[in-house]
Amino acid sequence: MKTAHTIEEVRSIIRAARAEGRGIGFVPTMGYLHRGHTSLVEESRKKTGFQVMSIFVNKMQFNDPKDFSNYPRDLERDLSIAREAGVDLVFVPTDEVMYRDQRTCVDVDLLTDHLCGAHRPGHFRGVFTVVGKLFNIVLPDIAVFGQKDIQQAVGLEKMVADLNFPLKIVIAPTVREDDGLAMSSRNRHLNADERHRALCIHRSLKKAAEMIASGERSASNISEAVGRVLAEGSPDKIDYVSVVRYGDLQPVDGISPKSVLAIAAFFGSTRLIDNMIMEERDEKFACIY
Amino acid sequence: MKTAHTIEEVRSIIRAARAEGRGIGFVPTMGYLHRGHTSLVEESRKKTGFQVMSIFVNKMQFNDPKDFSNYPRDLERDLSIAREAGVDLVFVPTDEVMYRDQRTCVDVDLLTDHLCGAHRPGHFRGVFTVVGKLFNIVLPDIAVFGQKDIQQAVGLEKMVADLNFPLKIVIAPTVREDDGLAMSSRNRHLNADERHRALCIHRSLKKAAEMIASGERSASNISEAVGRVLAEGSPDKIDYVSVVRYGDLQPVDGISPKSVLAIAAFFGSTRLIDNMIMEERDEKFACIY
Repeated sequence: MKTAHTIEEVRSIIRAARAEGRGIGFVPTMGYLHRGHTSLVEESRKKTGFQVMSIFVNKMQFNDPKDFSNYPRDLERDLSIAREAGVDLVFVPTDEVMYRDQRTCVDVDLLTDHLCGAHRPGHFRGVFTVVGKLFNIVLPDIAVFGQKDIQQAVGLEKMVADLNFPLKIVIAPTVREDDGLAMSSRNRHLNADERHRALCIHRSLKKAAEMIASGERSASNISEAVGRVLAEGSPDKIDYVSVVRYGDLQPVDGISPKSVLAIAAFFGSTRLIDNMIMEERDEKFACIY
Repeated sequence: MKTAHTIEEVRSIIRAARAEGRGIGFVPTMGYLHRGHTSLVEESRKKTGFQVMSIFVNKMQFNDPKDFSNYPRDLERDLSIAREAGVDLVFVPTDEVMYRDQRTCVDVDLLTDHLCGAHRPGHFRGVFTVVGKLFNIVLPDIAVFGQKDIQQAVGLEKMVADLNFPLKIVIAPTVREDDGLAMSSRNRHLNADERHRALCIHRSLKKAAEMIASGERSASNISEAVGRVLAEGSPDKIDYVSVVRYGDLQPVDGISPKSVLAIAAFFGSTRLIDNMIMEERDEKFACIY
């Protein structure tokens, strides 16, 4: 596994891989890697011959400077996990490599006023801008993102389509702990009690899947039931329980293929998100979560 | 010369040119070509082996729908001029090819409140977005823009640096009619009287160059003198006469290397722009206009 710290190094290593005829797969991360991240590399390897990962805690997407400085970092451990996962090139830029008097931003209109957009102002602009930069640096054939951050994934699909980036976004299934909690770097901030209570999120998704399997199609009925199951875990705050359309993330009244049920809730001071995508398969609804 | 109407065609033709080891030069235009445009192709050919031109009147950068519909178009003539100029591939997309529910935009912060930004709201966002799209479609090694649209050129240089587009922006000198009027598609809207009066712009740049050659370094003295020469042509309105720093287009008090003197004025209902870049060469000031 190679490690690059500058844009020039990345470009020259990837140029060499391309010259060998290898397709480029890309997994952008903020580090503190877990099985969720390594599953993205596995997904990428199914489709491409050279795996690039970036590790960069992107200041521009934090609206709270304290959240930025508290974000967990452990580069030694990350590099060993990445090597284990079969990554070919890790890009670890500094702030100075990525941002020098940055005055350009990329924005996708559909995300500013819903779900996490409403609760984390400026967050998605920071994500789109840094990912656009990384796409231009790495020039991958595919880039893999996790379903857990569904709003980010859908927004990036829209960005790629709208700005004609020559690559395909792949959305890989959420990876969960054995008890159902979605993997996240933030989980480490949960104490034992919060960790236990947070399982209500997964239970609420299961409940919604059962209702949909029984023919329920009302978004408000499903949201209410989800809210009741969440309440059993006494979350410290529920940011949202929302059923939206996949393509533009606008709220919908009725469940249909490519609806998304999205949840954000606090346990202690830790904000957790999770979601379920509904797809029609063989004239039945599949609930992917 | 090949003509492509879809993104897929463009990509496949350019892929083939790259496979032959040819560098890709790119000149984005809105058509109605004149010697200004063909000079950009000549500049591009000095550095690359395959010349791509796009012809697309970009709705997104017009703040006035009437200005958009009145923009001159003559594709037959354009194609023949492009062929003559040695263009290898012309990309002529429709609105539908370029924009399908576009929700993503690219913005560069330095241009919104100065010069043309103040007078044409939303204009530059439209330029940055469409050029970002075209860069991702064509993936050129260099893209050539004219000095006449200096604010656009500087903004695009900043966009390329900030978003790490893997290409170089080349700024080619303004091409002028024999009497000094900067070439522009808009010149055709001038009647004989307006056309004659508009020569004061070039005369005012000459005056500024003379003052600088004699040692004048005060931006306000130069602007005042420029204003007096402009007044001799009785412009119907002066949008601005401004001395700014090249890199961020902020107004400056004193002339220094890489200052820009920028002018925008109306003759009749036609808005003309022109400018001069100051550079230090062999410890002297060169005025490029």
